[in-house]
Amino acid sequence: MDEFDIETVGDGDPNLDDPTLVEGLPGVGHVGKLAAEHLLEEFDADLVARLYSEHFPPQVTVEDGRSQLACVEFHAIPEADLLVLTGDHQAQDNAGHYRLTDRVLDVAEDHGVERTFALGGVPTGELIEEYNVIGAASTDDLVAELDDVEFREDEPAGGIVGVSGLLLGLGERRGIPTACLMGETSGYLVDPKSARAVLEVLQEVVGFEVGYDSLEDRAEEMEEVVKKIQEMEQGQGGAPSDDDLRYFG
Amino acid sequence: MDEFDIETVGDGDPNLDDPTLVEGLPGVGHVGKLAAEHLLEEFDADLVARLYSEHFPPQVTVEDGRSQLACVEFHAIPEADLLVLTGDHQAQDNAGHYRLTDRVLDVAEDHGVERTFALGGVPTGELIEEYNVIGAASTDDLVAELDDVEFREDEPAGGIVGVSGLLLGLGERRGIPTACLMGETSGYLVDPKSARAVLEVLQEVVGFEVGYDSLEDRAEEMEEVVKKIQEMEQGQGGAPSDDDLRYFG
Amino acid sequence: MDEFDIETVGDGDPNLDDPTLVEGLPGVGHVGKLAAEHLLEEFDADLVARLYSEHFPPQVTVEDGRSQLACVEFHAIPEADLLVLTGDHQAQDNAGHYRLTDRVLDVAEDHGVERTFALGGVPTGELIEEYNVIGAASTDDLVAELDDVEFREDEPAGGIVGVSGLLLGLGERRGIPTACLMGETSGYLVDPKSARAVLEVLQEVVGFEVGYDSLEDRAEEMEEVVKKIQEMEQGQGGAPSDDDLRYFG
Amino acid sequence: MDEFDIETVGDGDPNLDDPTLVEGLPGVGHVGKLAAEHLLEEFDADLVARLYSEHFPPQVTVEDGRSQLACVEFHAIPEADLLVLTGDHQAQDNAGHYRLTDRVLDVAEDHGVERTFALGGVPTGELIEEYNVIGAASTDDLVAELDDVEFREDEPAGGIVGVSGLLLGLGERRGIPTACLMGETSGYLVDPKSARAVLEVLQEVVGFEVGYDSLEDRAEEMEEVVKKIQEMEQGQGGAPSDDDLRYFG
Repeated sequence: MDEFDIETVGDGDPNLDDPTLVEGLPGVGHVGKLAAEHLLEEFDADLVARLYSEHFPPQVTVEDGRSQLACVEFHAIPEADLLVLTGDHQAQDNAGHYRLTDRVLDVAEDHGVERTFALGGVPTGELIEEYNVIGAASTDDLVAELDDVEFREDEPAGGIVGVSGLLLGLGERRGIPTACLMGETSGYLVDPKSARAVLEVLQEVVGFEVGYDSLEDRAEEMEEVVKKIQEMEQGQGGAPSDDDLRYFG
Repeated sequence: MDEFDIETVGDGDPNLDDPTLVEGLPGVGHVGKLAAEHLLEEFDADLVARLYSEHFPPQVTVEDGRSQLACVEFHAIPEADLLVLTGDHQAQDNAGHYRLTDRVLDVAEDHGVERTFALGGVPTGELIEEYNVIGAASTDDLVAELDDVEFREDEPAGGIVGVSGLLLGLGERRGIPTACLMGETSGYLVDPKSARAVLEVLQEVVGFEVGYDSLEDRAEEMEEVVKKIQEMEQGQGGAPSDDDLRYFG
Repeated sequence: MDEFDIETVGDGDPNLDDPTLVEGLPGVGHVGKLAAEHLLEEFDADLVARLYSEHFPPQVTVEDGRSQLACVEFHAIPEADLLVLTGDHQAQDNAGHYRLTDRVLDVAEDHGVERTFALGGVPTGELIEEYNVIGAASTDDLVAELDDVEFREDEPAGGIVGVSGLLLGLGERRGIPTACLMGETSGYLVDPKSARAVLEVLQEVVGFEVGYDSLEDRAEEMEEVVKKIQEMEQGQGGAPSDDDLRYFG
Repeated sequence: MDEFDIETVGDGDPNLDDPTLVEGLPGVGHVGKLAAEHLLEEFDADLVARLYSEHFPPQVTVEDGRSQLACVEFHAIPEADLLVLTGDHQAQDNAGHYRLTDRVLDVAEDHGVERTFALGGVPTGELIEEYNVIGAASTDDLVAELDDVEFREDEPAGGIVGVSGLLLGLGERRGIPTACLMGETSGYLVDPKSARAVLEVLQEVVGFEVGYDSLEDRAEEMEEVVKKIQEMEQGQGGAPSDDDLRYFG
């Protein structure tokens, strides 16, 4: 395998016009990943490419006995003219983040991507009442266009790291207007409500319609889990079942 | 030395037909390593190649004063048509795991390897009563063939890492059917019984006969060690001798 | 993006004669960074180049919603014939430090730099009464010339690391006379007074005039912060406000 | 600078016949470094080359204000037909150890080196009464020749790491007979007595004469330091002075 290896799936021509790239890799509260995967569930999505890399963990995942080498995947959603990047991994080293993002942008350009939205979460350290979405963008035009998003003077304080951050930084250098939409989230739990808040901004600006029933179901499951934990902490509940706990990862 | 350096031993033509690659490098409970080394002891095995790499630790081992540079070794077992990969080292970095596995597969292809079994252990965190063997495979055919192996919905939970995992992932990409056989083991001790369980599955599917006396002897030695430790913990025994303790590494 | 990527800003010809390179990247007490940024504030400074690298953190900073990819910047100050290197990042790995410094020296040579001053702090572990400046230089001539600087037998004990150290080491190998000016500082706080001490040496040896009002203002703000912390520790004061705390970073 | 950069000092022809390479880089108890530096002090030694590398720390050392980029140095001792490798640094990463050792062997071959002795210490964890020297060698002939050295079944248990280990491993691959001489040492302190024990073996096998007065002086200084520490621990002494403490590094 080379440093990066792109495996095209299907005919490599997924019927997109001038698509928007949507990125949702693992991160704070899995907000971006939940949001991007929700799009894949709600729309007809076609797997168009897998991207392998020696910058990913040296690992296969196993499901029902079948192995799958660590990768990220591109799906096309022709109905909404979206190219969606999802996966379970980020690069494991600095240079790997830069080079992975460059390869992602190569694929994006091959599909004629005209702009990019990187989805993620921003940790607040406390339980969220109202799910604001914080933004960052590589062009003034995008800042102006995103009027449902809060642009704050010094936030996020530590900047934006990983693929989301570099899609802004390297996308700008290639002339691809890019915004990062970050849902506020406690940072402690997988947060489907924050993912919904991010998607509501995205659907407005990109222009598509999507339902949220399954995200709401997951949010309710999470609330059950949180309730059980609170009960346990108060000495009233039993240990959470394995089934509960898998929502934390 | 280059990034990888393959030293052919003997005439490089080890009288194999369409061999099976068996990998047993260090890992959980040293299950894979014990199993693969047991094959080398029980059969007539010919050393055919050493693979050196700057991804291994910068280290020589010393035995009776003679040094040996860190490497992994390939042995041929013509009687069972096996090519066996053993050694004391895994790569020390992410890219190294990918590249080492690629070189291993190069050697395997040079010898006409038709399929691969990666041997290892899966930690359970508790002492094992019945030694199950968990499986993962790169093809549905192998899943179907391995009927003595348990394929579980979400196990191993963290996937399979290192050379064993990548033999599945990269082997699949090269079209070499690959399975990983993982013996359950506590994860705390070198586990010859788990190695036997793995070998029993392997001999069935590959088709060879092997005795287990020496593994049983080692298993009994381990049980003595465990007993002494338990006595020590109960304040009844003396400190374990050096000779006891070497079984833990 | 390549390993390094230099983006020229403006016409790339910043009206310098035989300039002095001044480096002020993050380090102990942010002394070098404060000093170099003070020059940019006090003089008319023109941004001439940005240097991006995969050895920097995979990160964008965000200000009022606009993203900026991690980089270091070169500014020209024609009035004082200075080329000033500033930024928020050092390289994140050993080889990166060497290669980044080599690229910095490439840019310096492109602009005809004749000598280099690397600015920084040296931690003393205690609050400073008198701000001495410790020196190190790559040539005996520079040692002789810097008579306001203390050259000590075994200091700094651990040598000088990062870009400052390598500007000395790699600059010497290219024949660019280089000195490092290190202001004593406690090591616990951002230290504008130490930055002033360093600049006073620099203006003497390079030959320019600069005011220190804004550094003095920052020094007073820092003293307020220190006072509040001391009060808090004595149980007399309230928690410092966010506005106070940002002076610590 | 390239990954490695060799700076020849003088005319590059240091009047050696078929020299022995002696390596003494930092390690356990600084035994190898002390021993190699003692040779440079006792004989007329000519600096013949400096080897720089981006695998060394990104650092200059400073002495009386003059900077020196991190490097290792080769000295020739024509009187004893030795090429001596010393320095303050080892490589900082795995591949760096391999590549640095390869470059060292390139230099050695350029000077016609016929065999190599890597000097070092082996930690025992307790104060040493009798200073044994443990050996490891890349050829049976060298094992046979080194009759003042102990070759033990399983020692050193962890093998030999770093440049010393790789001089054995990579030297063997190039056909340069190599031995490692390891003086027993507590592992807690710089140990001039262990360095003397190693040198006494070396002078016997290589065939040279050297005095040990200065090593004995350092050993006595170390004993003073140890005594003071013991007194301090018993609550009878004052804090050690800075001058005492520098012997620990």
